[in-house]
Amino acid sequence: MSTINRVVCVLILLASLVAILETEPMLRALSPRLFPTLETVFVVIFIGEYLLRLYVVGEDPRYRGIKGRLRYVFSFWAMVDLLAILPYFLGFMVQNNGFLLRMLRLALMLRLTRLGRFSQAWVALAEALKSRSHELWLSAGLAMLLLLLSSFCLYLAEAPAQPEVFGSLPRVLWWSVTTLTTVGYGDMVPITGLGKFFAGLTAVAGIGIIAMPTGILAAVLSDAFQKNR
Amino acid sequence: MSTINRVVCVLILLASLVAILETEPMLRALSPRLFPTLETVFVVIFIGEYLLRLYVVGEDPRYRGIKGRLRYVFSFWAMVDLLAILPYFLGFMVQNNGFLLRMLRLALMLRLTRLGRFSQAWVALAEALKSRSHELWLSAGLAMLLLLLSSFCLYLAEAPAQPEVFGSLPRVLWWSVTTLTTVGYGDMVPITGLGKFFAGLTAVAGIGIIAMPTGILAAVLSDAFQKNR
Amino acid sequence: MSTINRVVCVLILLASLVAILETEPMLRALSPRLFPTLETVFVVIFIGEYLLRLYVVGEDPRYRGIKGRLRYVFSFWAMVDLLAILPYFLGFMVQNNGFLLRMLRLALMLRLTRLGRFSQAWVALAEALKSRSHELWLSAGLAMLLLLLSSFCLYLAEAPAQPEVFGSLPRVLWWSVTTLTTVGYGDMVPITGLGKFFAGLTAVAGIGIIAMPTGILAAVLSDAFQKNR
Amino acid sequence: MSTINRVVCVLILLASLVAILETEPMLRALSPRLFPTLETVFVVIFIGEYLLRLYVVGEDPRYRGIKGRLRYVFSFWAMVDLLAILPYFLGFMVQNNGFLLRMLRLALMLRLTRLGRFSQAWVALAEALKSRSHELWLSAGLAMLLLLLSSFCLYLAEAPAQPEVFGSLPRVLWWSVTTLTTVGYGDMVPITGLGKFFAGLTAVAGIGIIAMPTGILAAVLSDAFQKNR
Repeated sequence: MSTINRVVCVLILLASLVAILETEPMLRALSPRLFPTLETVFVVIFIGEYLLRLYVVGEDPRYRGIKGRLRYVFSFWAMVDLLAILPYFLGFMVQNNGFLLRMLRLALMLRLTRLGRFSQAWVALAEALKSRSHELWLSAGLAMLLLLLSSFCLYLAEAPAQPEVFGSLPRVLWWSVTTLTTVGYGDMVPITGLGKFFAGLTAVAGIGIIAMPTGILAAVLSDAFQKNR
Repeated sequence: MSTINRVVCVLILLASLVAILETEPMLRALSPRLFPTLETVFVVIFIGEYLLRLYVVGEDPRYRGIKGRLRYVFSFWAMVDLLAILPYFLGFMVQNNGFLLRMLRLALMLRLTRLGRFSQAWVALAEALKSRSHELWLSAGLAMLLLLLSSFCLYLAEAPAQPEVFGSLPRVLWWSVTTLTTVGYGDMVPITGLGKFFAGLTAVAGIGIIAMPTGILAAVLSDAFQKNR
Repeated sequence: MSTINRVVCVLILLASLVAILETEPMLRALSPRLFPTLETVFVVIFIGEYLLRLYVVGEDPRYRGIKGRLRYVFSFWAMVDLLAILPYFLGFMVQNNGFLLRMLRLALMLRLTRLGRFSQAWVALAEALKSRSHELWLSAGLAMLLLLLSSFCLYLAEAPAQPEVFGSLPRVLWWSVTTLTTVGYGDMVPITGLGKFFAGLTAVAGIGIIAMPTGILAAVLSDAFQKNR
Repeated sequence: MSTINRVVCVLILLASLVAILETEPMLRALSPRLFPTLETVFVVIFIGEYLLRLYVVGEDPRYRGIKGRLRYVFSFWAMVDLLAILPYFLGFMVQNNGFLLRMLRLALMLRLTRLGRFSQAWVALAEALKSRSHELWLSAGLAMLLLLLSSFCLYLAEAPAQPEVFGSLPRVLWWSVTTLTTVGYGDMVPITGLGKFFAGLTAVAGIGIIAMPTGILAAVLSDAFQKNR
């Protein structure tokens, strides 16, 4: 990776961080001028980078001349670059809508996907996963089945006792997901004996749901490492 | 898998999704007519499919003639298909009981088990697990022992301080399950120093309980993959 | 395992289940006579089993004669059996103290350890763990270090903001344990920006703490399985 | 490890435990004299150990004579030892500031890093991790991407419904970290249907984020063990 690309990477990360921090009202209140200024700075830099790339790309015979340059403008990565700059200007039209405005500014984060351009490693990982996609789909199917089964049991056990909380299957599905993944927020908790019994089984099944993809991944990666040697 | 089977799979998934969404009162209130209509549509389609299968099955010499057709009707998968259609008609008899009615409609989800008919992969997974069932049972036994031990310790430490929450072993068992599986709802939390000490040990032991089956599964799958090559 | 041992195993499990359920006041209230009766039945059966074993053990030349029987009575497993029966009689002396009484009755669960007598598999597992005890201790040490470090950071960040909740290192240690093991009860949650930043790092480090022993176990078991073939 | 080093290790652990317990107001209230006395005892012992080391180090030709001793005093480990003693004396100057005082006393825990001097195992672990650092960085990058993506989705879905709780991306990042690591405190929970849908996907993605490093570690350690044999 060349030095210029490293600098662009750091700038993209910084611009994304600023876009994230800007959404916090407490930080905006501290210094109302800071974030708009920073954004203008980043957009100016990124426009400069865009024009520079447009000029330099002429070295490549494919993109020579005006016709070649137009072909480059409509290439995938150039479109991403443009899409990350445009929202800044669209922002001036929706000045009076703070929420929409910030959403548009966050489009700068689209540039993060450009970081992927510099790395071939994602491809290797994706292939390693693909080689065992059958097993991964199987465990996903099993997880889905457990999700439905546990939701059904909890619905039967808890709906009469807590009609507001466990009163419909979509609501219980939310509970099941947070329990099977062992997140466990605690916003919905069974209170009946039967409900707790089923919930306990669900939590234990959750271990299996974590163990299955972990085991598959460990096996895949172990094979991949042995092949490399 | 033939095209017709793919279509049936998608229909079963759709019908199940509708049956799930129908249990949500807020969605039912949005459009009181939508769900009964959709259900009727699905049941009509599934009856059509059932009759078609009953006709086509005659191609198989085992199910030729009326006697053969009857044999098919009482075969396992045909029974599942029938059980997924019948609740719709039973529903008309319990019109005035909303909860029971929805329970019956959910029987449509029985059809999901039919998806299993199209996949042989479950068998392979089950065999892989069976080959190491001894180790899996062992870790289950160890988990059960830890469950009892930690419940006992927490009961001793917290029962006097929180008699309502940790006041009996079955209640503390619920806490132990949610902690050992690292779900951690937070509906029951120790407050005494000794209780927190035991709870910390339980949480750490929970890592072992997750690590054990994961390690076994990873080893089993790694072996299975190496054999395949 | 002989048929008689299987029956004894089931009886031990049943007696333990009864001892657990008895601690729940709501179940005791349902039928005040049931649990004392069941306990008496179990104790009578276990006394019978104890005497039978004492008689049958004479077949073994080591335990022949009165002197041999006495040697058997003071052997480890016979002591466990006796310790599981005695609390029943001690119970009559502390009749007026419900909590202590139930604690004594739970001694019946000591018998669960007797189930270990019938299985040699624990030994194999313990050896597998021992062979990599060095790595497991290392990951335990690393976990302990992370525990102290994250507690220290959270104490610095949150103690001034929430003096009651994060006001001392022992209290913060409890938070750190529940976060590093990804249990996350939610009884203590950082509210300052810095506290949330450190807490996020702690939660991410918790993944490593789970991954380390899991990886070691997976490697150990994978080796053990390959050796067996 | 020599006997004297073992004793010093135990003393460091004890002193650290005392420094931790001292931060708890309830324990300080129990016995106001105990902790200052214990601290003085530990500091006296550690000063003695420091002087003894300074004398004994002369056996090493590198540190012979006064010039050699000065070189030792400014060596890394001797500095750590000194830094763990000095805060005790600084403490007398900030007597009236309880919080700062306790912070200084906790510097005793710096000595814990000295335990690292006695173990070469950390190096082996670090190397094992280094050999697969590429894969670990990749999974860290993937986790970071998922973190941003899920925060963005939750912000879009929940910010209008819960402006106080999900009102800015930094706040939602905190939620995302606790969900992706499956900690799940429950201090921030989505309430809209769309928010719960995205949150469910986040929780499921969290399993992958745990499975990835676990799988890599398992594969690395499995390779390392096979090389050792």
